[in-house]
Amino acid sequence: MLKAHKHTGENVAALMADLGARARAAARPLAVAAPETKNAALLAMAEALVAREGEILAANAKDMEKGRAAGLSASLIDRLKLDGQRIAAMADGIRAIAGLDDPVGSVIAEWDRPNGLHIERVRTPLGVIGVIYESRPNVTADAGALCLKAGNAVILRGGSDSAHSSAAIHACLVEGLQKAGLPEDAIQRVPVTDRAAVGEMLKGLNGNLDVIVPRGGKSLVERVQSEARVPVFAHLEGICHLYIDKSAKLDMAVSIAVNAKMRRTGICGAAETLLVDRTAADTHLVLVLEALAAAGCEIRGDEAVHARFPSAKPASEEDWHTEYLDAIISVKLVEGVADAISHIETYSSHHTEGIVAEDAAAVERFFNEIDSAILLHNASTQFADGGEFGMGAEIGIATGKMHARGPVGVEQLTSFKYRVRGTGQTRP
Amino acid sequence: MLKAHKHTGENVAALMADLGARARAAARPLAVAAPETKNAALLAMAEALVAREGEILAANAKDMEKGRAAGLSASLIDRLKLDGQRIAAMADGIRAIAGLDDPVGSVIAEWDRPNGLHIERVRTPLGVIGVIYESRPNVTADAGALCLKAGNAVILRGGSDSAHSSAAIHACLVEGLQKAGLPEDAIQRVPVTDRAAVGEMLKGLNGNLDVIVPRGGKSLVERVQSEARVPVFAHLEGICHLYIDKSAKLDMAVSIAVNAKMRRTGICGAAETLLVDRTAADTHLVLVLEALAAAGCEIRGDEAVHARFPSAKPASEEDWHTEYLDAIISVKLVEGVADAISHIETYSSHHTEGIVAEDAAAVERFFNEIDSAILLHNASTQFADGGEFGMGAEIGIATGKMHARGPVGVEQLTSFKYRVRGTGQTRP
Repeated sequence: MLKAHKHTGENVAALMADLGARARAAARPLAVAAPETKNAALLAMAEALVAREGEILAANAKDMEKGRAAGLSASLIDRLKLDGQRIAAMADGIRAIAGLDDPVGSVIAEWDRPNGLHIERVRTPLGVIGVIYESRPNVTADAGALCLKAGNAVILRGGSDSAHSSAAIHACLVEGLQKAGLPEDAIQRVPVTDRAAVGEMLKGLNGNLDVIVPRGGKSLVERVQSEARVPVFAHLEGICHLYIDKSAKLDMAVSIAVNAKMRRTGICGAAETLLVDRTAADTHLVLVLEALAAAGCEIRGDEAVHARFPSAKPASEEDWHTEYLDAIISVKLVEGVADAISHIETYSSHHTEGIVAEDAAAVERFFNEIDSAILLHNASTQFADGGEFGMGAEIGIATGKMHARGPVGVEQLTSFKYRVRGTGQTRP
Repeated sequence: MLKAHKHTGENVAALMADLGARARAAARPLAVAAPETKNAALLAMAEALVAREGEILAANAKDMEKGRAAGLSASLIDRLKLDGQRIAAMADGIRAIAGLDDPVGSVIAEWDRPNGLHIERVRTPLGVIGVIYESRPNVTADAGALCLKAGNAVILRGGSDSAHSSAAIHACLVEGLQKAGLPEDAIQRVPVTDRAAVGEMLKGLNGNLDVIVPRGGKSLVERVQSEARVPVFAHLEGICHLYIDKSAKLDMAVSIAVNAKMRRTGICGAAETLLVDRTAADTHLVLVLEALAAAGCEIRGDEAVHARFPSAKPASEEDWHTEYLDAIISVKLVEGVADAISHIETYSSHHTEGIVAEDAAAVERFFNEIDSAILLHNASTQFADGGEFGMGAEIGIATGKMHARGPVGVEQLTSFKYRVRGTGQTRP
């Protein structure tokens, strides 16, 4: 692999083409690797992370110093920062991935045909996955481990802010691969920080990249979605709605609304818009908004909301389109579930929507008519998470409808093939 | 809808944008249409096809006349030709689709979480599907019906050779939609023959096209795969292999080889290359080749094959890359299953491969290590077909690994969403 850090555009293209070809070559032995071999690699990676803590922290100190000198915000510096606890958490995350069922080779469906053919649909790896992420160094470990578990080769392209940290973590992953006798090229890291490297990945590395997963802010995802010539698993934003029906239990409406918005405001499953059934305006609205306000949330409401909750700021059309990722919520009165559905279909990013209701017919309608990746009844939208779904770990959440939708875990990082067993059948 | 048949590029772009927007608008009511409503529409379509046979045949006569005048080959003219029997077969095909289980809303998986949340993964329509096909007019009926069954809106772009026939068939589909009270825009036909219309579809109609299915020859599929900015379900070619292991039963090897190659030579699941275990050269090779030659097949072999079967023509490197779609087969001696796998991984189009063997270990290795959509043991490769798989009908066969792979039937034309039911759970 080229080691120089200054590259011309042509050099970057050649470097990236080489990474793609190496990944493709590594994908085949990886696809047929035994579950025990992959798990041995994962456990050795976790061990290496812990054993090489000092090395990783020294690399991280360089990134932090550079970040401070460049005037990075306190929150970005915090994202960048590693300590013993965070490194141990990364190692634990990899061990948990080792403990998951191996998806490769598992039979998804099987059936017999009248002519005696027995057909099985079995999971196979996807091939080569590209992960493009920003400053969080832990994505190096998470994404590398998850792709390996599903039998895929991966090319990791982290942000320049965390380059030293990512390189140190990547060295531990490679050590794990080596110890288990798996190809080192199974997990490659783009060794240059040129933006042109991302452009090459978006073009697909001569057919050697099967899917791209962007992990980061809206502008990164937007660029990847608009320019990628290969499939993308991503969500651009999570404009998640919570609808409170007139049949909702009052205490449940309050606790779910506060949790959906305020548990963590910066995650994609946080509620951004609250829709309240007009019939419940007198019973539910004010109590829910008081609880949100008491939890520190700014309320932006339409006129009907303002009339009942005067401290609400006015909501503009823009608010219905906004993912705040902050302690702000837009609130609207709607004429029952049909109107809630109509608002959601207009403004939603099709990530996650919740309904609080006891009326089964309203719930079924909400579940049937809304076309978002995740719909929840009487539960917080913040459950929109692969771990909470029992998938063990996720590489992200997808709002596209092709292949993966919702949390993208090991199963979603696989494809399938058919195995047909006969006894000499020919087709008439 | 614009009726004029001469369009400027700008007009075509506006027309296609309009078709896309109409399809998207129709997709929502379609996604929630009851199974009975969709089936009523399908049955009414079948009825209309039979009732309007005269109209369809008159339209077909115009296409045939135009085709003859343009000097179309006899095989193209035959593809184009409709008669009472072919129209009845189209109607039967639609009735069979009506009889399939409705995929929309079916629960693919469900599980409970320790916190009491119940999670279901249920099928939903994909949205809007674009089908780009060549001269076969029956694709209008098949593709329209299959997309409708899966709850998708569809935009059909048939070849100019069959324009009149397709329009007449399309009118029957629209009549069925009307009778069932479904939106007419659920099945639209591109009313112009400009190539620019295809270009607009490949660009995705402003995000209103979710997937494209090309049905036709290699040059059409090649253009769609290289230019489309939306996902494509397709196979470029079917370079299918049949491997005869030394453990194969002799009579089975002969009957499967002859069927895999010669039953129909023009379909994508026809075998194009025969690999024979060198250890079986003396027992199996000559008998298999004699049977193929007796069935009218030209044999092209490597030197070892020629040494044992002198009438074989020499196979060049090019032959291993060739999908003949004709009564020609390339034949090679290999050193057991490992060498067969290696040849297949080098030359296969990852469509379908078969093994004839009694040795279970050889079969398992073949099944595990080859990454093609369909693998068959002791059965003809010509079973690579949605109908033969029990899917009822297929819109094509896909060799990509994203979303759909192998036969693309109603289930493969769906996505999914998660429905999560709680009792007030909030996330800690």
